Formats: sequence, structure tokens, C-alpha cells
Amino acid sequence: METKSENRAFGGVQGVYTHASAVCGCDMTFGLYLPPQAERGPVPVLWYLSGLTCTHENAMVKAGAQRFAARHGLALVFPDTSPRGEGVADDGAYDLGQGAGFYVDATESPWAPHFRMWSYIADELPRVIDAAFPIDPERQAITGHSMGGHGALTLAMRHPGRFASVSAFAPIAHPGASDWGRKQFTAYLGPDEASWAHHDATRLMREVGLDAPLLIDQGANDQFLDLLRPADLARAMAERRQSGAFRMQAGYDHSYFFVATFIADHLEFHAAALAG
Amino acid sequence: METKSENRAFGGVQGVYTHASAVCGCDMTFGLYLPPQAERGPVPVLWYLSGLTCTHENAMVKAGAQRFAARHGLALVFPDTSPRGEGVADDGAYDLGQGAGFYVDATESPWAPHFRMWSYIADELPRVIDAAFPIDPERQAITGHSMGGHGALTLAMRHPGRFASVSAFAPIAHPGASDWGRKQFTAYLGPDEASWAHHDATRLMREVGLDAPLLIDQGANDQFLDLLRPADLARAMAERRQSGAFRMQAGYDHSYFFVATFIADHLEFHAAALAG
Repeated sequence: METKSENRAFGGVQGVYTHASAVCGCDMTFGLYLPPQAERGPVPVLWYLSGLTCTHENAMVKAGAQRFAARHGLALVFPDTSPRGEGVADDGAYDLGQGAGFYVDATESPWAPHFRMWSYIADELPRVIDAAFPIDPERQAITGHSMGGHGALTLAMRHPGRFASVSAFAPIAHPGASDWGRKQFTAYLGPDEASWAHHDATRLMREVGLDAPLLIDQGANDQFLDLLRPADLARAMAERRQSGAFRMQAGYDHSYFFVATFIADHLEFHAAALAG
Repeated sequence: METKSENRAFGGVQGVYTHASAVCGCDMTFGLYLPPQAERGPVPVLWYLSGLTCTHENAMVKAGAQRFAARHGLALVFPDTSPRGEGVADDGAYDLGQGAGFYVDATESPWAPHFRMWSYIADELPRVIDAAFPIDPERQAITGHSMGGHGALTLAMRHPGRFASVSAFAPIAHPGASDWGRKQFTAYLGPDEASWAHHDATRLMREVGLDAPLLIDQGANDQFLDLLRPADLARAMAERRQSGAFRMQAGYDHSYFFVATFIADHLEFHAAALAG
């Protein structure tokens, strides 16, 4: 693993690291924030999954999460959103290929050799981080924005017991019913919609639900409401009597200003769950 | 004036606006954050001047200032760091020309026609903002990072009574004695060092000082200490018995992670001065 940068931030260290990913078959870069508490021993970790077009860097520099991670003693992981580099398939569209991994393991050509973000986030990167940094693998939580909110919700519902708490900012909530989902699932997983079932938060909420506290924030003025389909998930949550909160925030759009505004609430929510 | 974007943030609005600048002879873009308190009447304003290579955008998305501006009811202005566009002189170096205006009015060719950031920040942009937004021109404060810290300190010392408080993050503190200063002042103002005197914070501190509370933060691991020369300014402050604080912060470098770490202190400092 190569250290790309380390910056003191809020008494801790914001690092950026690159490693050879066996799962993705390419070098992968991630950001990791260690709070000052990590100097004294392992700390709980919050995963932050990012959205379309993002790298590891966007949330790391825009979300303002480190202030509250330092306050609560949480490590933060900021993975990339896809494999990258020469030899990795790509597409001219912003919403397919590099920067748009959608947190699935592709089975279709030309994506299958590298686009395995599901296994990368669920299996490989946790092992890499656990081996190299003072984090406590028994205390993990997960959040994400947009495509990353989709990733956080689906990973959590399919790994019961792993995450102490789950949250999302404006998640892609029902990809099987949206052009942010159907296009990519067809490309990555093929046209048989049965293979999509485990990657759809609304469908998973109906079928299995979540065994952990849940917090979702959605901007009422989000320019992508038709693609995100938050109402489908809100209805599924209510029908299941899922513990948790779905909050519609008046005036907010899809940007990082929305995420930054509510990041303190999410960090406090996760810190409480991880402490309990 | 054209609205480029407006995003809800922390209950207020983060806007980006472009206007035709008579002083710079080109279109200029700035960010302006209005806190929720601005819906009920004029609010005090804090100027944030940015550093080399920055546009209006860097601090606006990376510093995390809006959270505290909303808490304290302050507007924030994020000006650009130079004139820009076709027909505006430039240089291949990152530290001269576009993105490196150094907050002076150039007198030398080819810079003189457009590079008038001193007058733009001191005179034109305040009038533009006062005319268009609910800010109180009688309650202003100023801060900045690196080259922007130089701008904040020199503007404040040469406009006694204008700013209720002044702060800086890792300012270029003694440009007349540094390669971050001598090169640019020679290019913009000519080789006669007498013309540089009003643009050197250490020299101004020795000669006139500041009639307002002052807060300076400097990272002890800043990679540019030799260019910034903070010790020269610290000595001048102490010798003058200048009211204020010069804080050396162990472990921090020159990045926005440093700025973001201490932005809450600076906003609280300015809010207290503006309220008093």
C-alpha cells in the first residue's frame, strides 16, 4: 500500500492510500480519516460511499465529516466509486463505467473483469484497512450519498449484523424502477431482472428490512427526485414498520451543500449507535 | 449581475454570481453565502480572500465556513483571486497572472489593464454586494488564506476602522522578503521597492499596526514556511504590542484541512467582534 498524502485535520490524520486490488484487478485509491482517539487504540469506523462521477476525494474535501468524526472518535473511509485506469472498461456517459460502479459485481462483458465494487467494499477493502490501521472491525457503520446511498442501504440489508447503524443522503432508492439503475443493471448484470433483486433498496426493504437504526435525509428540491424515487423507499419503510427516520428537508437540492448541512446529524446518529 | 448557482446550505443560501467588473475590465465571479438570519434583515459580512491558484470556489466548498456563518448570522463573501478570461494577461507559472492577483493594483505592462484586485476588493465588490444583498456595510470583517491572508492583513491595515476584526490562515506575511512577493511585486508594481511598502503585512505592522482584534493561525508543518515568513510578522506584532493572537498549530500543513480545522474559531472570533 502506498501513501499518497497525509494531512493533519481536526487533531487526527486525513490520509489517501493506493493499493493493488485483487478483486478489481487494478490499483484502487481510498481516503481514510483517523481521529485523534486512534492514537490510543482501535476506533469504530464509518464507511462513506460516494455518488456518480465522484472519486475518493469529493466527500473527503466537501462533506465536512472530519470535524464530527474527531469529536466522536470515529474513523472515516472514503472509497472510490469504481475501478479505474487504462485497461479498465469505460463508457462516454457519466452514469456508466468509471465513476459509476453502482456497488455491484458485474457479470457482463466488458465490465465483468474489473467492475466488482460489491466484493471490493464488502470484503477486500475492509480486510486491507483492518490490517493496516487501528480500527475496530467489530464496530462499523455505513452511509453514502446518491449512488453511494444505494450502496450503503443494499450492503447493510444484505449483511445483517455487520453495521451498527445505516444512513443515506438522497439515495438512489429504487434503481429497478429508475433510469438510474435499469440502464446500469442491464449493462453490469444483464437483462434478467431477477439478478437485480439484491441491489434494490426498496425491494430489499420490502423483503428483508434492516436490523439496525436507519436515518435517511432527502432534499425536497432535489433536481433528481424522479431518478432517486425516495417515495418508494419511504413507503416500503413505513409498510414494514422499519425502525428509523426518513426526513424530507425543505429547500435542499442534491449537492454537497445538502450533505454538509446534515453531516453532523448523521455522525451523531452513528456515534450513538456505535457507542451502544 | 448573473446568478450562476444557488444552493440551500445550513438554512441559508450559497450563491455564485458573475458581474461585469469596471475595475478589472472583465467579468468577475464571486461566491456569497447568506445565512438564514438574512431573511429578516441585513447581516454582518465576513470577507474570505483565497490563495494562489484558487478561484471563488475552493474555500466555498472546502473550508466548511457556512456551518458557523449560519450559527452566528454572518454573510460570507468568496471573491476570485484575479481577473480572468481571454484578453487578460497570464503567465505559465502558478504564482503569477491569473489565479495570482496578489491583491494589488498593477502599474506595469502587461498586467496594468486588468490586474486591479486591490481596488476590486476594497471598492468595487463591496458596492456591488451592498447594492444587491441584505448585508450591513457598517459591520464587516476580513480573513484569508496564504496569499489571501496577505490580502486580508494589508487591506485591513490600510483601511483603519473598516473591519471590526481581522484574521488569517498561514498568510504570506512578509512578501517583500520572500519569493512569494518579490517576484510578483516586481512584475505588477515594478522594481522600485518603495511601491511595495503598502502591500507588505510585516512592514505595515511595524509602521501602522492594526486598530482591530487580530487572529493568525499558522501550521507548524506548513511546507511553505520559508516563503510565508510567519516569524517576521510574529516579531513585528510582539514588538508593536499589537493586540491579538498568533497561534502556531502543531502538526498542521498548508492545506484546506488546516483551514477547515480552525475555521470555527475564526468565525466565532469575528462574530464576537461584529456583535460588540
